[in-house]
Amino acid sequence: MSVAIALVHHPVLDGQGAVVTTAVTNLDVHDLSRSARTYGCTDYFITHPIAAQRELVERIRAHWTDGSSGRRIPDRREALRLLRVVESLDEAVAALGGRDAIDVWVTAARRLGPTLSFAEARERLRRTERVTLIVFGTGWGLAPAVVSSADALLEPIGGAAGDYNHLSVRAACAIALDRLLGARTGDPA
Amino acid sequence: MSVAIALVHHPVLDGQGAVVTTAVTNLDVHDLSRSARTYGCTDYFITHPIAAQRELVERIRAHWTDGSSGRRIPDRREALRLLRVVESLDEAVAALGGRDAIDVWVTAARRLGPTLSFAEARERLRRTERVTLIVFGTGWGLAPAVVSSADALLEPIGGAAGDYNHLSVRAACAIALDRLLGARTGDPA
Repeated sequence: MSVAIALVHHPVLDGQGAVVTTAVTNLDVHDLSRSARTYGCTDYFITHPIAAQRELVERIRAHWTDGSSGRRIPDRREALRLLRVVESLDEAVAALGGRDAIDVWVTAARRLGPTLSFAEARERLRRTERVTLIVFGTGWGLAPAVVSSADALLEPIGGAAGDYNHLSVRAACAIALDRLLGARTGDPA
Repeated sequence: MSVAIALVHHPVLDGQGAVVTTAVTNLDVHDLSRSARTYGCTDYFITHPIAAQRELVERIRAHWTDGSSGRRIPDRREALRLLRVVESLDEAVAALGGRDAIDVWVTAARRLGPTLSFAEARERLRRTERVTLIVFGTGWGLAPAVVSSADALLEPIGGAAGDYNHLSVRAACAIALDRLLGARTGDPA
């Protein structure tokens, strides 16, 4: 099992369903790096088509991997080292060995089609030796083209409060990684 | 079962173990509200001893509950309506009925003492009719006085990657609520 994650800023949807490009959020850089490191992911790809936005993320990364903040908080440096800044999801897929070599799972807040349950996904990860890339969207979620090109769509994360589903991507990614990869030794058999 | 959460900005620890007061982070206001709403929590208390910081949080809250942004994103408004800004954890406890009427569970990234496993905690929540307040710290975590005055300390959230533990509070809160309150219908029996 080898798991990487990607955060996509284009193509994603806005609140009206149009395909847009979102701006980088600083805490997405940090929080998803930290969650990725906690759950043993190999890479965290931030994909952005705009060079200036990629440069911004590179500067944040360097500040923590090579700069003074990394020396101040070594745990943060370790997390940010997983970060790779790429232009597109295709570039992330290529960096992991190409589309045929890996499994791509996408996430969505709504049930856009047949979904893979977290229990089944967790089992699949345990059994496979392939690389799995789990893709998260910013804005109002991944554009249909990204969803339809994936090998599986993970089930929406539901809470106890009916069908309300408006988690932040920072929360959704953390929960997804915990459900897929979290230690479960304290659980009843 | 009735669960509320609190985010404490004082007394918390800094990186050297000193007791400090941290500044409010805007996305803590949003993310924990959204996670609280997703998992059916009754209230999200932000506790801060400094009036100007409480006023800042109140302005953010009002912007989303009564202002234009709330009209633009009704789901966000619903989340921010759970937010209550208080001066101290004691004030949050009092708002829920007082120390004798509720159970207070604290969280920590390290194993500071005997801990309550998430599996057992989930069962307790199912069985109880009491209010449970789950307390999260900013900075490097809750000060010892807060931890020792609680009814239980939840087990640290572990990943697949050994003892690395440097999740953001936004991620840790999301994972804790999912473990305690998340739907588990897809899981094997």
